[in-house]
Amino acid sequence: MFQECFHHSPRSNWAYAYDMDTIHLRVQTKRDDVEEVTAIAGDKYDWDSINEELPMLKIATDRFFDYWEAAVKPKYKRFSYIFRLRQGEETVYLTEDGICSDQPQPVAGYYEFPYIHEIDLFAAPEWAKSAVFYQIMPDRFADGDPSRDPENKAEWGGQSTWESSFGGDLKGIADHLDHLTDLGVTAVYLTPIFQSPSYHKYDTVDYMKIDAHFGDKAMLKKLVRDCHDRGIKVVLDAVFNHTSEHFPPFQDVLKHGEQSKYADWFHVRTFPAEVKDGIATYDTFGFYGQMPKLNTANPEAKQYLLDVATYWIRETDIDGWRLDVANEVDHHFWRAFRQAVKDAKPDAYIIGEVWNDSRAWLLGDQFDSVMNYPFADKVLGFFTGEGLDGRTFAEGMNHLLMRYPQGTNEVIFNLLSSHDTPRVLTRAGGNKLKLKLAVVFLMTYIGTPCVFYGDEIGLQGGNDPDCRPCMEWDEGKQDRELYDFYKLLIGLRKSHPALLSGRFRFLKADGGDARIIYERLGEGEHFTVWMNPTGERTVLEHAMDTNDWHDALTGDHAPAKDGVQQVELDPYGYRILRREL
Amino acid sequence: MFQECFHHSPRSNWAYAYDMDTIHLRVQTKRDDVEEVTAIAGDKYDWDSINEELPMLKIATDRFFDYWEAAVKPKYKRFSYIFRLRQGEETVYLTEDGICSDQPQPVAGYYEFPYIHEIDLFAAPEWAKSAVFYQIMPDRFADGDPSRDPENKAEWGGQSTWESSFGGDLKGIADHLDHLTDLGVTAVYLTPIFQSPSYHKYDTVDYMKIDAHFGDKAMLKKLVRDCHDRGIKVVLDAVFNHTSEHFPPFQDVLKHGEQSKYADWFHVRTFPAEVKDGIATYDTFGFYGQMPKLNTANPEAKQYLLDVATYWIRETDIDGWRLDVANEVDHHFWRAFRQAVKDAKPDAYIIGEVWNDSRAWLLGDQFDSVMNYPFADKVLGFFTGEGLDGRTFAEGMNHLLMRYPQGTNEVIFNLLSSHDTPRVLTRAGGNKLKLKLAVVFLMTYIGTPCVFYGDEIGLQGGNDPDCRPCMEWDEGKQDRELYDFYKLLIGLRKSHPALLSGRFRFLKADGGDARIIYERLGEGEHFTVWMNPTGERTVLEHAMDTNDWHDALTGDHAPAKDGVQQVELDPYGYRILRREL
Repeated sequence: MFQECFHHSPRSNWAYAYDMDTIHLRVQTKRDDVEEVTAIAGDKYDWDSINEELPMLKIATDRFFDYWEAAVKPKYKRFSYIFRLRQGEETVYLTEDGICSDQPQPVAGYYEFPYIHEIDLFAAPEWAKSAVFYQIMPDRFADGDPSRDPENKAEWGGQSTWESSFGGDLKGIADHLDHLTDLGVTAVYLTPIFQSPSYHKYDTVDYMKIDAHFGDKAMLKKLVRDCHDRGIKVVLDAVFNHTSEHFPPFQDVLKHGEQSKYADWFHVRTFPAEVKDGIATYDTFGFYGQMPKLNTANPEAKQYLLDVATYWIRETDIDGWRLDVANEVDHHFWRAFRQAVKDAKPDAYIIGEVWNDSRAWLLGDQFDSVMNYPFADKVLGFFTGEGLDGRTFAEGMNHLLMRYPQGTNEVIFNLLSSHDTPRVLTRAGGNKLKLKLAVVFLMTYIGTPCVFYGDEIGLQGGNDPDCRPCMEWDEGKQDRELYDFYKLLIGLRKSHPALLSGRFRFLKADGGDARIIYERLGEGEHFTVWMNPTGERTVLEHAMDTNDWHDALTGDHAPAKDGVQQVELDPYGYRILRREL
Repeated sequence: MFQECFHHSPRSNWAYAYDMDTIHLRVQTKRDDVEEVTAIAGDKYDWDSINEELPMLKIATDRFFDYWEAAVKPKYKRFSYIFRLRQGEETVYLTEDGICSDQPQPVAGYYEFPYIHEIDLFAAPEWAKSAVFYQIMPDRFADGDPSRDPENKAEWGGQSTWESSFGGDLKGIADHLDHLTDLGVTAVYLTPIFQSPSYHKYDTVDYMKIDAHFGDKAMLKKLVRDCHDRGIKVVLDAVFNHTSEHFPPFQDVLKHGEQSKYADWFHVRTFPAEVKDGIATYDTFGFYGQMPKLNTANPEAKQYLLDVATYWIRETDIDGWRLDVANEVDHHFWRAFRQAVKDAKPDAYIIGEVWNDSRAWLLGDQFDSVMNYPFADKVLGFFTGEGLDGRTFAEGMNHLLMRYPQGTNEVIFNLLSSHDTPRVLTRAGGNKLKLKLAVVFLMTYIGTPCVFYGDEIGLQGGNDPDCRPCMEWDEGKQDRELYDFYKLLIGLRKSHPALLSGRFRFLKADGGDARIIYERLGEGEHFTVWMNPTGERTVLEHAMDTNDWHDALTGDHAPAKDGVQQVELDPYGYRILRREL
């Protein structure tokens, strides 16, 4: 066995409390190198009476490694443990103190899970686990109240630019809730709506005021109420990393310099705060002098932002916050933010914008979820790119799954496109069949899916600002066939708990072959999804023990023959089979 | 190259801010497998203008891996990065997205250090970095006030048992400060002193009251003042995981059950709270029914304990807390504890009792340090055990060093023995020469050393309760030669900053050979330590570029010859050489 490849760490994604009774342990070994892994766990204060051996299941494989998992349910909320690894006749023990060939005496050198504390649990809101999200940029969704249009309003449907405002507003969203209800989404995430000079409003001037071009507090309140009446949750965008240069405290700093009572609300490196030779003397978002970075460690600035977060929950009953540029804000702030938000609304959902490995924010004390851009990259790379095979795709997806605890994977914010990426149909080169495969995957995968407004009716667009066109409301110009497809898949996801929390596993993902099969195995039901991301008609085969599979969308029986399931697939075709357990 | 062995993670001990300007990056490769590692770092918002290549230094090697490190000083407190690894003609790139043979376009798939936040820095107090600690169990140290003796007082110097009280007290400590000053220690850690029925007082009845057998608040205040006058810091022991069963809130729970207003201060699984068939119906420390576990997540219990922590700082000016059974208390509590303690005294030092891998507590938001029992195990295993060679020892020590960031390693609480382990001289089988080697290592290694009371004058004792004998104050019965040795080594450490923060590295640590050489390389001076943990006289050799080495203890010149330093060592001998840079 390649002992160098053994890995476990007594925390994070390797050892975590899934719930108050259950701890998941994971071990990494070199791919195809180890036959059997067993967790040996017991109570260090009375090992002789309380100990057990738990076989571990190989739950994932990536490019280099196999991953093994076991669930431990300790009697007294604590345990010490080591692992036994076997290949053929060779057996070794992996302990915190190293690798050895004889089982060391309990418990010196053993790993430890000292105590399951409820307060330290990663606990995302239940509703988020089953939600289907829809992301809306208000300026581009619908103009419901022309009296609120900005002066420089561009004509609806015109070319999106960095500057153009199209007059969309909260009333426009409220007017189109039938669209959301019909599509089947259960939550919306709105990009920023607070007072700001830009159409996108990622540069806030007044956090306590809805931008007048979008509406007012009463309008938001009504929108949230209307959404709630339809079973739709509402999440807003919190831009707390930076403000607009017109944010009054920053204006005060520009005016009074070091004497300003807001001098420490920002990261001014040298006073006066100004832009000199193109570089600001204060920290900014990127190098944008007009977006000064907030000092979230300053107690007053921090309290102000926490008040913003709870004010809108209290006043309008919103259901959570998406956090812009969340990775550039300090961890202390996010801990206090979580506390304040959950005090105000215990089942509020907190989604950070972090494009990279996000473990540092997902330990239970900060975010419930992050926008899963690595998911989008891998899924679109596979279904809309060229040349990737099933094996590489599966390795990539498994690698991402093993990055986080299961509880996180169940609520991570999976998306295919957003206001910061090209549209999914554009990524697919306009090939709707490829797009559909990506959507099938999104809707049958583990994690909380999100649809970017308009993707469901065929909007296209490259990078920002192209990806932010106006929503098309003329049904004659909408791709209704695509819409019905989205609706069908969303409906499927919502009616089958196994698609939310069932165990995910690839059944076929081979080198040199783009065709894949994967399963979701839940309580009471079992899905297999068959996909053909190639331009050729094909027949996929997989050994099946039972003959009770049915097409999940049509209900047709899909008979197995001699223990083999055969599924015929069109070019870029897919089939979702289901059976009851 | 064995790509399976490449490892980096964008956080924790792999990527951390050492100070406001400097981020340390570390990469793991298979031992002796990679020739050169380079960090490629730049600003993602303007990569073309701001990017650099940093050669990484191989700073440690353990059983399986080499560890490489580079310090990045980004211009704008943030950067993205990847690593280039080369062996011979083969070059590959390690990115967050995987390993590839061509450098990927910046910055998709790159690792990221989003922003250095001062508030998120791991920042232990400066004084702790240069402190030499001395641990005292008050009952066993000195009886300064016989009027406070408990009724059942055993005779001073008698056999230590689980129960025996010997009458030691705070006055006794105050009376012997000359001993501490003369020895050279700069900080004391007292095991618990609050009201408790036991002599060890790890079962607290009243956290707001000094145990009457030890003294009172005025006495503690005076002791702290006297210590401060001598430049000695004072750290107390906080037993917040559990209380005595006589703790009034627990008595209230016993009496009123679920109706008690303290019902949620503990973890009562089923009411009534009682011990049934030997098992308590409430969570306990270990299985001790007389030590009920506190629910530190209960807001009132939490506030009470935080008040305790700050009360004693405010009232008596103590300099920190050692946290008993710290790993079984929730993380939220420790974060609030740190905040409260640092608000009360910014340079208070917080040391957790965690015997295992402690990364989860050392991210800057909880503890400054942990009691480094793994250090004791490895050092005593090597210097007092039989059969370990230098290579195995170096692998073990390097493995521990790589577990934590450098800032943590500089203040980790290194010890050879404590109230919970056998005495160091006993571990050494009474062989003082072996003990001395361990002490030389302790005093010349990275981390904050601690001496357990009496080790310096030759106290012996096996496991608890044997390891807790009464201090010997009769100089005729003290081992004065050993005392002078401790004093010499403590003095050496205190007068040479390179022994505190200089880079540590093994120069010789070979298989099948117990003899080792290591160095500490600091600003302005350079140490090499030569050790012979064998029963044979020996001559150690090492290539040396310069001829300016002197014995650090005697000042004698230690000439090199033809670029080779030769050092003759007695059985179990050592020599410490120093040169100025």
